Amino acid sequence: MIENYSININIDRLMEEIEYYAQYGQVPNEGITRPSFSEEDYKVRNIFINQLEQMGLDIKIDAISNIWATLPSKNKNASTIVIGSHLDTVPNGGKFDGALGVLVAKEIVQTLQENNVSLNHHLEIVSFTAEEPNDFNISTMGSRALTEKLSYCQLVNATDSKGNQLSDVVKKAGGNLDNLSEIKRNDIAAYIELHIEQGKRLENQNISIGIVDRIVGIYRDQVQVIGEANHSGTTMMGDRADALVAASELVLAVERITSQFGTDAVATIGKLDLYPNAANIIPGKVEFILEIRSASKQEREIIKTKIHDEFKRIQKERKVAILTENILDQQECTFNQEIVGLLQNAAESLNIPHTTFASMAGHDATHLADITKAAMIFVKSIGGKSHCPEELSLPSDIEKAANTMLHAVLLADAKLDRLK
Amino acid sequence: MIENYSININIDRLMEEIEYYAQYGQVPNEGITRPSFSEEDYKVRNIFINQLEQMGLDIKIDAISNIWATLPSKNKNASTIVIGSHLDTVPNGGKFDGALGVLVAKEIVQTLQENNVSLNHHLEIVSFTAEEPNDFNISTMGSRALTEKLSYCQLVNATDSKGNQLSDVVKKAGGNLDNLSEIKRNDIAAYIELHIEQGKRLENQNISIGIVDRIVGIYRDQVQVIGEANHSGTTMMGDRADALVAASELVLAVERITSQFGTDAVATIGKLDLYPNAANIIPGKVEFILEIRSASKQEREIIKTKIHDEFKRIQKERKVAILTENILDQQECTFNQEIVGLLQNAAESLNIPHTTFASMAGHDATHLADITKAAMIFVKSIGGKSHCPEELSLPSDIEKAANTMLHAVLLADAKLDRLK
Repeated sequence: MIENYSININIDRLMEEIEYYAQYGQVPNEGITRPSFSEEDYKVRNIFINQLEQMGLDIKIDAISNIWATLPSKNKNASTIVIGSHLDTVPNGGKFDGALGVLVAKEIVQTLQENNVSLNHHLEIVSFTAEEPNDFNISTMGSRALTEKLSYCQLVNATDSKGNQLSDVVKKAGGNLDNLSEIKRNDIAAYIELHIEQGKRLENQNISIGIVDRIVGIYRDQVQVIGEANHSGTTMMGDRADALVAASELVLAVERITSQFGTDAVATIGKLDLYPNAANIIPGKVEFILEIRSASKQEREIIKTKIHDEFKRIQKERKVAILTENILDQQECTFNQEIVGLLQNAAESLNIPHTTFASMAGHDATHLADITKAAMIFVKSIGGKSHCPEELSLPSDIEKAANTMLHAVLLADAKLDRLK
Repeated sequence: MIENYSININIDRLMEEIEYYAQYGQVPNEGITRPSFSEEDYKVRNIFINQLEQMGLDIKIDAISNIWATLPSKNKNASTIVIGSHLDTVPNGGKFDGALGVLVAKEIVQTLQENNVSLNHHLEIVSFTAEEPNDFNISTMGSRALTEKLSYCQLVNATDSKGNQLSDVVKKAGGNLDNLSEIKRNDIAAYIELHIEQGKRLENQNISIGIVDRIVGIYRDQVQVIGEANHSGTTMMGDRADALVAASELVLAVERITSQFGTDAVATIGKLDLYPNAANIIPGKVEFILEIRSASKQEREIIKTKIHDEFKRIQKERKVAILTENILDQQECTFNQEIVGLLQNAAESLNIPHTTFASMAGHDATHLADITKAAMIFVKSIGGKSHCPEELSLPSDIEKAANTMLHAVLLADAKLDRLK
């Protein structure tokens, strides 16, 4: 055997760290509000960097203010295995989304240090900047900047709703947009990210961990339902072209069609606006965004076609026009099968029951997959809750996931190409 | 016979006046925007007052800046017959809503003057201030102030979204809120208002005019549908408590239940808002206003109960909570049967086909009915369109309505009590 299965992470220390970090941005009963570049984010960045320094790691803040900390290999020309996630939260979010992946990465490095494990690769912890939707309207900012999907112009001109320049707040976090051209990395051998599931699939199957082998594709249409605005009193029921009544049929059709598939495919109308939106005016126009997610392109196409056909039927039946415009057609991302296999092997070696499935949401790992061998591991979310104060993962599940990740890192260190 | 059926209004002059007034606030293809206290409203007020002065009428601007113009009776102690409507419009409204009633009133007085008709009652033209919803959030302002339904405090503290004081803009229009206590009138024998129908009932029956014997009652509930906000990707279809999907069932139920009645009863959901309203979040809450209108209290109650029962059924079926709070329960207003009879008699004498029905919308006449004998006459709206640039009533229909109104005034003058 190439590794020692007696090495385990310290779950008590990890849970203490999760609670410690959760203090920053927390309001009782209102969860944690810690968007990137908030005062609480700056505090947490400093705490994190201090801890990494005390661990003796080499710290680097890159152009977009992603935080990197390296446990160096004796082999100076080694390539790097990166583990991590993000420390920012949505408004009124939970303790686990993002922070868990970063703190597990730190715990893994601490465990390796305590066990005097010497690696063939450098091992780097990363905390990505602004993964969540934020006031600069650029989510997965850190991983997209790293993978050169955000241009200098786009970033340097970005301002938040208060007029703050992104370049200023990045500088305050130790980054510098002027160094963006140097952000690219060619030395990463693998990226593994641990994250909470944010859904109920693991809970429903009573399994602690899921190995993530794909990220779903996302299809979005902007839909306009155009009826006729009219006085709510003087326009008899039979004379109406009520855009909301027609839109309501569409909403129910989307649910009915997608539920019939019985797969992990989902479709949602989450944003919907009425015009003119007054109690005494029959809605003349409804605009909404239809979103379809599935890990299979073919399935997304079938669902889309069935929904569009139903829209056409409803358009004929009701006196409305239905206009659809595709605004997003993001293909699924397939993770690296070798890394997925290492995660599966690690779980099997530790006798930890696991499943392998698609992530239904995007993550920093989606972007890392473009520059390195990437995969993810999910931990069960109690009640599937996420982005809310009730977000919860249990220590017993977290411990299984973190140990699986630790041993996958050791397997990767043994098996992956060691040179840059 | 007590009156001369050869007297007729001058439809060409009336149509010219309608076009003349329509210039103020008109933008090509965007209708007329002339809310009370806009610059265009002030212009129209001056034009109107100048015309009334040239007609030799006695002008009075009351505390809330309603414009009154009297054709005096030889009998100085006579009570007054009032005819009129309002000159303000909704944003992007039409030429006819309000202005038609005021200009018909002026045309009637001109016709009587030209025919040297001497009346037993004073005849007064009124143009009420701010009948339409406006930036001060006080609609039917002039008629409600006149009938003492708006307090001095409420008015004097009112400001618009730009911070303008109502007291200042009223003063600019010739009114004075400090004189509000003197606004009350005890000398009005009758109020008759001509207005466009704003619906399709007359068009559907191919009739030019409708005598209005009631104003509908209006019932409104604020409804909250509370589900669970969740990630649109990670939350499987079967695990959702989507507030919008549930609300869509409610919207369709409201339409289905109300349409089944086959009467003039209407129910509308015109205002609806999603929370948090983001493409990638399952709606956790939907708030909407349910409005039910019917001229029969009993019918409103039955519709309300059926809708509430269906809400309860849907609440059980879907994993949501549905909370309803009544925010308006305005009873129907019955107009004066004597005035309604005079309008019917006038139409019959002139051989003008007519129907008698309820107004499905509120008007200044609703409030005047509290202090005098009131009724209304409606003119056919082409396509039922109103509050939009396409608002249209045809000269042939307007002429029939105006002549009916003229002769109803003459009948009222002959039959109503002549003393204050």
